[in-house]
Amino acid sequence: MLKVLAVNAGSSTLKWKLFQMPQAETIARGQIERIGFKDARLEISTKQNNFSEELMIRNHQQAVDKLLKILTEYKVVERLDEIKGVGHRFVNGANHFAKSVIITDSVLKEMENLVEFAPLHNPANILAIKAFRKELPNAMSVAVFDTGFHQTLPEENIIYAIPYEYYEKFHIQKFGAHGISYRYVLQRFLEVSQHEEKSTNVIILHLGSGASVCAIHGGRSLDTSMGFSPVSGIAMQTRSGDVDPSLLIYLEEKLGVASKDVLQMLNNKSGILGLSGVSSDMREVMAVHQDNDRADLALKVFVNRIIKYIGAYATELGRLDAVVFTGGIGENIPYIRQLICDKLGIFGVAISDKLNEEKNKETKISTINSQVEVWTIPTNEELMIAEDVVKLYSESQNKISS
Amino acid sequence: MLKVLAVNAGSSTLKWKLFQMPQAETIARGQIERIGFKDARLEISTKQNNFSEELMIRNHQQAVDKLLKILTEYKVVERLDEIKGVGHRFVNGANHFAKSVIITDSVLKEMENLVEFAPLHNPANILAIKAFRKELPNAMSVAVFDTGFHQTLPEENIIYAIPYEYYEKFHIQKFGAHGISYRYVLQRFLEVSQHEEKSTNVIILHLGSGASVCAIHGGRSLDTSMGFSPVSGIAMQTRSGDVDPSLLIYLEEKLGVASKDVLQMLNNKSGILGLSGVSSDMREVMAVHQDNDRADLALKVFVNRIIKYIGAYATELGRLDAVVFTGGIGENIPYIRQLICDKLGIFGVAISDKLNEEKNKETKISTINSQVEVWTIPTNEELMIAEDVVKLYSESQNKISS
Repeated sequence: MLKVLAVNAGSSTLKWKLFQMPQAETIARGQIERIGFKDARLEISTKQNNFSEELMIRNHQQAVDKLLKILTEYKVVERLDEIKGVGHRFVNGANHFAKSVIITDSVLKEMENLVEFAPLHNPANILAIKAFRKELPNAMSVAVFDTGFHQTLPEENIIYAIPYEYYEKFHIQKFGAHGISYRYVLQRFLEVSQHEEKSTNVIILHLGSGASVCAIHGGRSLDTSMGFSPVSGIAMQTRSGDVDPSLLIYLEEKLGVASKDVLQMLNNKSGILGLSGVSSDMREVMAVHQDNDRADLALKVFVNRIIKYIGAYATELGRLDAVVFTGGIGENIPYIRQLICDKLGIFGVAISDKLNEEKNKETKISTINSQVEVWTIPTNEELMIAEDVVKLYSESQNKISS
Repeated sequence: MLKVLAVNAGSSTLKWKLFQMPQAETIARGQIERIGFKDARLEISTKQNNFSEELMIRNHQQAVDKLLKILTEYKVVERLDEIKGVGHRFVNGANHFAKSVIITDSVLKEMENLVEFAPLHNPANILAIKAFRKELPNAMSVAVFDTGFHQTLPEENIIYAIPYEYYEKFHIQKFGAHGISYRYVLQRFLEVSQHEEKSTNVIILHLGSGASVCAIHGGRSLDTSMGFSPVSGIAMQTRSGDVDPSLLIYLEEKLGVASKDVLQMLNNKSGILGLSGVSSDMREVMAVHQDNDRADLALKVFVNRIIKYIGAYATELGRLDAVVFTGGIGENIPYIRQLICDKLGIFGVAISDKLNEEKNKETKISTINSQVEVWTIPTNEELMIAEDVVKLYSESQNKISS
């Protein structure tokens, strides 16, 4: 019996979940938003209580201090040393880290060298890691990489058709993302569907605020839609997904801004938000799409890009056994699932209207006659992180005792 | 009976073909390369002779003067006024021109406004048009647009998921290319395969030095792989095809160059050349790929990107009746066709090794049991241009006589 904290730090956020392992019981969860602002917001939910507070939080160190203080104050734990492990979601491990690792000083140094590959995310991850290592010196710190699952991609899917030296020298290649989610969902899918890992070809659609598609063969990632950065692939809440690179230079000139600013626009003002002009939230876009041409167009583009990736990946896989929906949109919006599956006729996909009504539940939504199984499997990245911590913790305990 | 000249002007080239129409008989053909250099090269082939010369040619006007002089010198025509029409390939007609048009002064002005959409090609096209209109004032000048065929794309395939205002204000959208080739090949395919245009779903692969993929439903372009510019889509001889837009900014910083320079690298030093380090010529890469890892990787990437587009487009089409190969590589390299078709098993594609040996010939290469027909159809963009000229010429003659 082990208490493990799973941590996901963003540039101004700290999300966390405390698990009782191996039971995978959530003891408490919470988040701190607007770190670095006067009006940061702290939320915590335990089995008994929900609590929130607005306060000034200067940086990630202060956020971690506050969180740990609250855990004892609210009797979530009696003493902080009950927490035996802290697992950190690390966004981009580049091609240095395929698997989760115990964070030592030298590992941390390696991780610091990867900041340039995820300039928005990795620095926050590192700040959080340092703060937790300082405050919980006896807990094991573990890094779990969102890119790790995609280290199995064959070279022709990783590389861009640019001069080879940039791949060698600068590691410009596809890294992908959402690997922690894909790993969890795949594991759950294989268990509930009773498919054998080795022989199964599955496409998982992680449709959240960030969104991507992953082709999996024999338990290994074969291809994925995010690339060198999370801006590419399918259209997302505020990210453009794939665009012609020439438009960066064209807009740079037309708008008289720097190329960096254009890239920022592709990350933060594009996707569903940019097309619809209504919202980045798919539910708000759906609510108005019948009377709003741009909202309708945003919805069509979202579906269009996804079905093209499914077609491309089914072709690469050579045979398609299942499509699995996950992420906020994938788990909870039957209408989007229906729009997507309606366009997969060439693969013999058929879903049941009734079964497709399910939300946030592990469900097979395809009909008996569908040539491809379609599932919805809620993701749980925090639990995947906690499981990795437990695994590494147990291994290290065994080493010590043997 | 009509003599028609089809002209394809590049930034430093002028390619042409003189047809006897409507018989579609090639009277002569030729090209001038390295326009603007001291050692420009002029080549001409007639039924009787081949001739080439190295000379200084300052600009497109001089190139046109020289060409027309040679046509009478070599008795290709008795008098220049036998040439009743000149058709020009115009690379990017943006969303202003869906169909071929007679070039009047006002049309030319409209075309000049489109220079920014194809900064490398459109200016040369305009120089050539002006020179021919000056030298052959009585011939009808016609513009045939490489983008015209893609004007039927639905909005969700045209638009990028970026703020909608850039689509409205700056016409940032997918334009595609190779439309003249697609139109010609589709026409020939329907004729020789005896498919009905209305009900046929076909994917044409135009694999030349530039290369793209086009999904066609009911005779109309539904989707195509080139985008706002010719750099996107599949990997080409020297163009990268699709890349993560972030890598432009990353390389800009790493190399300390302007974003324009990175884009130029994506256009001129990437693709098969950049990956293989051997050559931009597919035949030279193929010749060494068994002993050269990078050449082999270039080949794999080339095939990989193509089969993904085929999968994506088959899914959009909902049913796939035929795949058609055209362009220099598509017409003449059986090995590449085989590598591609081998990866289309999910659609029940099967080709005959023996039939696939054919080069440069209208041939059905799929087996009887293949669920999708596979054809190779040599393209003839010049003839398509000449046919458009004849059509507009006849219409204008009918108007005059009626």
